[in-house]
Amino acid sequence: MDIKKSQQDVESATDNSKDSSLGRRDFFRKTAALSVTALAGTSLLASEEAGDPAILEPTPWGTKWGDPVTKNLYGMPSKYEHNVTRRYTKLLASGNFRASIAVTPLQESSGIITPNGLFFSRCHGGVAHIDPNEHRLMITGLVEKPLVLTMKQLKRYPSVTRTHFIECPANGGQEWRGPQYNSLQFAKGFMSCAEWTGVYIKDILKDLGVKKEALWMLAEGGDSSKMGRTIPMEKVWDDAMIVWGQNGEALRPEQGYPIRLLVPGWEGNLCVKWLRRLDFASEPWYCKEETSKYTVLKPTGKAIQHFYANEVNSTVTSPSPEIDWTDLEDGDIVEIEGLAWSGMGTITGVDLSFDGGKNYVEAKLKGLVLPKCWTRWSYMHTYKKGQELFLTSRARDDAGYIQPTVDQEILTVGVEAVYHRNAVETWKVEKDGKITHVEVRSQLGRKANGELVIEGKA
Amino acid sequence: MDIKKSQQDVESATDNSKDSSLGRRDFFRKTAALSVTALAGTSLLASEEAGDPAILEPTPWGTKWGDPVTKNLYGMPSKYEHNVTRRYTKLLASGNFRASIAVTPLQESSGIITPNGLFFSRCHGGVAHIDPNEHRLMITGLVEKPLVLTMKQLKRYPSVTRTHFIECPANGGQEWRGPQYNSLQFAKGFMSCAEWTGVYIKDILKDLGVKKEALWMLAEGGDSSKMGRTIPMEKVWDDAMIVWGQNGEALRPEQGYPIRLLVPGWEGNLCVKWLRRLDFASEPWYCKEETSKYTVLKPTGKAIQHFYANEVNSTVTSPSPEIDWTDLEDGDIVEIEGLAWSGMGTITGVDLSFDGGKNYVEAKLKGLVLPKCWTRWSYMHTYKKGQELFLTSRARDDAGYIQPTVDQEILTVGVEAVYHRNAVETWKVEKDGKITHVEVRSQLGRKANGELVIEGKA
Repeated sequence: MDIKKSQQDVESATDNSKDSSLGRRDFFRKTAALSVTALAGTSLLASEEAGDPAILEPTPWGTKWGDPVTKNLYGMPSKYEHNVTRRYTKLLASGNFRASIAVTPLQESSGIITPNGLFFSRCHGGVAHIDPNEHRLMITGLVEKPLVLTMKQLKRYPSVTRTHFIECPANGGQEWRGPQYNSLQFAKGFMSCAEWTGVYIKDILKDLGVKKEALWMLAEGGDSSKMGRTIPMEKVWDDAMIVWGQNGEALRPEQGYPIRLLVPGWEGNLCVKWLRRLDFASEPWYCKEETSKYTVLKPTGKAIQHFYANEVNSTVTSPSPEIDWTDLEDGDIVEIEGLAWSGMGTITGVDLSFDGGKNYVEAKLKGLVLPKCWTRWSYMHTYKKGQELFLTSRARDDAGYIQPTVDQEILTVGVEAVYHRNAVETWKVEKDGKITHVEVRSQLGRKANGELVIEGKA
Repeated sequence: MDIKKSQQDVESATDNSKDSSLGRRDFFRKTAALSVTALAGTSLLASEEAGDPAILEPTPWGTKWGDPVTKNLYGMPSKYEHNVTRRYTKLLASGNFRASIAVTPLQESSGIITPNGLFFSRCHGGVAHIDPNEHRLMITGLVEKPLVLTMKQLKRYPSVTRTHFIECPANGGQEWRGPQYNSLQFAKGFMSCAEWTGVYIKDILKDLGVKKEALWMLAEGGDSSKMGRTIPMEKVWDDAMIVWGQNGEALRPEQGYPIRLLVPGWEGNLCVKWLRRLDFASEPWYCKEETSKYTVLKPTGKAIQHFYANEVNSTVTSPSPEIDWTDLEDGDIVEIEGLAWSGMGTITGVDLSFDGGKNYVEAKLKGLVLPKCWTRWSYMHTYKKGQELFLTSRARDDAGYIQPTVDQEILTVGVEAVYHRNAVETWKVEKDGKITHVEVRSQLGRKANGELVIEGKA
C-alpha cells in the first residue's frame, strides 16, 4: 500500500469520525487486506486451510472435563492473564509500601469500568481491614443534631449509583521535567473508574440541621493514618457521596471498606477511605495531608492551597509502550484507542495528532459519555511500516477547558509542582513499531527548520 | 406512628415517585424519626454521646499499620464479605457439577454491574482453561472467504463496548408449580449484568461476503461440551457480538475466556463460551442443546422450538428472604429496591404492589436506563411493625410488553415448561419482618370474600 492510499484512509476515517458507524464501510473495504495479511501472519494456518476442519483438531481443553461450577465460587482471572495486575515502584514508596501507591494497568483496560481487583490503591498507613459491625460513622460539629450511624442505619438512606473516575492528583506528577517512565501504567495509571453506590451527604444533612456558620467539612479516616481532608460545603451540597458499593459489590479493603467518601472529579485523596467522621466548621482544618502534601508549588515559591478538581486530561492506551505495533504489517488497519476524562464536567471531544501536536484530527467518542467519568475514544489508522509518528491526544470538556501543551503548563506552573499535571502526552512510534514515551515542546520547541525539540525516555 | 400517618407516607412517596428527588423532602421530614430510632437502636451509643469523641476510641485497625500496597496486586473482597459468593444446588446439577450452574447473590448487588467474581456460571462440560495464544476462531460455511483468526487479529477490528445482562432462560424455571426456593439468589440468580467489549459480528462479515442462502449461524464452543447453538441471521446483522472484555478486563475462564458470543437480550446459552467456530448455512443445525434442551413444552405436548429473547421481568432485591426486615422498628423509613430487565428493549416503568398484585403504585427507575440491561428501581416505604404485606413488582418495556400474572402465564404455557418464566413474583412480609417467597394467584385466585389464594414456601 503506497503512501497516497494510506493518507486516503486517514482522511476518510477523519471524515467518518463523527459517524456512528466509525467509518466502517471504508474500514472494511480496506480490511480485506487485513484478513489476508492476518492469515499470512499466522504460522499454523493459511487462508486456503480456513475451511478445513483440520484446524479444529483436538485440544487439551476440548477433550477433557473442565472444572466444576462448585470450584471458585468467587472467581479469579485466567492464569494466562497473570501479568495483568496493579504495579508499584520504589520511586513512589518513600521507603514504605504502607504509604505508597499501586497503579492500574490501563494498557489492558477496556470500556470505562476498572475491575475492583485492578483499581489503583493509594494508602497513607496501609490497607486497613475493618469489621463493619464494629464500624461507626460520626457526623458532628456545626450541626443541630450530631449523629452516629451504624453501617445498617447508613444504608437505609435512599441509595444512588453513579459512574465516576477517581484520580490521584499526582498522576503523571513525576514527569514535570520530562518523561520518567516508558510505561502507560506508571505514567498514567494513578487512576481508575468504577460504578459507585452510596448516599449523597446532602441527603443526610437534611436530617441534622447544618448551621449557617458551617463552611467546611472535615472527612477523617478510621485507619492508622487518620487521613484527614477538608471539603468546601459547596461541593458537599453538590454531589459528594458516602459510598459502600463498587461495581456491584462491597468496597474492597484497599478502597476503604466498609465506606469511603467520594468527591466526584476531585483529587483522589479527598475521597477519604475507611471513613469514620464528618465534622463541620467555619474554617478549613489544614490537616497534615493538605499542607505537607497536595498543594501545588509555583515558580514564585508560593503554593496553591485549595486546588481540588482534576482538570481535563487524556491518554493513548493503544498503542502504548506496553502495547506496541511491532507485529503490524505495512497497510494493516489498526484502532488507535484512548481515554479522556475531566473532573469539571463531561468530555466533549478528543483531538489526535500524528506529528506531536502540530496538526490534529478529531477522534470518535465511544460508548457511554458521562460527567466526571472516563470516556473512551478511538481512531482507525492504516499503519505504514517504517514511518515514525508522534501520537498526541488532546481532550476538551463542557466546562470549556482544553488540555494545555507542555509549554503552556510549564509557563503557568513551572516544573516544581507535583500535582495536577494535565499537559498533553506523546508516544513516539519508532520505525520498528516500538513505542517510546517522549515529551514534545509543541509550541515553543521547534527549531527554525520546524523540526521538533524532543526529550525522550528509552 | 399510627396507620393513618403510615398511609400518608406511602401516598406521598407515590406522588413523588416520578420526581427525581425520590420524594426526599417527605422522606427526610420523616427521617428525623429514623435517626432517633436508629440511635436508640444501637446498643453502644445514645444520641447525647454522638458528639463525644469517646466513640472514636482506639480500634485494632486504627492503631497499627495496615497491609502494604505491594500485597494483593490483584485484590479480593474483605474477609467480612466471605458469605457473598456464587452458590450452587444439587437440584440443578443432575449429579454432575460440570454440567451445572452457580448463581449470583442478587440480594447483595448494587447498581447494574455484577463483579466478574460473582457473575453466574452455567457450564455443560465444566470450566475450560484455554491458552489464548493457541486458540483460533474459524468463520466458515456459506461465505465467499472463510477465515481463521488469532486472538490478536480478532482484536484489531474496531471494538465496541455495551452494558447488557445475560440470563439463563431457566431463571425461575423451577417454580412453574409454585415457589421452590425461599431465596432470591436461587429463585432469580441465574443472571448477571456486565460491561462487555468486543466486535460486532456484522463488521467481520462485511469482509467475508456472506452468501444470500445463509439464513442461520452456528456458534460452537471449544470446550469439552462443544456447546452448539444456531442463531438466525436477523440477530447476527442486528447486535450479536464476539466479546473478549468484561467489566474492563479479560473474560474470566467461566465466562468463556478468551472469547464468547454475546447475543444481547437472548437466552444465555446462545452466548456460546470458549467460542471456536461460526458456521453459516441455510437451515438451523438443531444441535443437541437446542432440541433436548431449551425448548418450551406446551400443554398440548408440543414444544416451542425457536424461542430466544428473555421477556420483560423484574424482582424485589431488598427486602428478600436473605435481606429481611426483622431489625426494623415501627415507623422506620426503608428503601424497597429491585431490578427490572427485558431482552426485547428498554425498561419503561416498574409498578409495585403491597397486596400481591391487586393494587399497584409506580416505582422510580434509578441511575442509567439502558436497552437489554438491568435497570434499578426503588420505592421509599414506611415500615409498620406487625403489618403483613405481599410485595409484587411488575415491569414494562418499550417493546410494549408487561409482565404477566402467574395465572395469565399458566393459562398460556401451562406448568410443564422449564424456560422463559417471567410471571410476577411475590415476597410475603411476615408480621415479624421475615420474608417468605409465595405465589399469588392474582386474577383467578381470590375467594368470594376477596381473600388471596396463596401457595407458600416457608
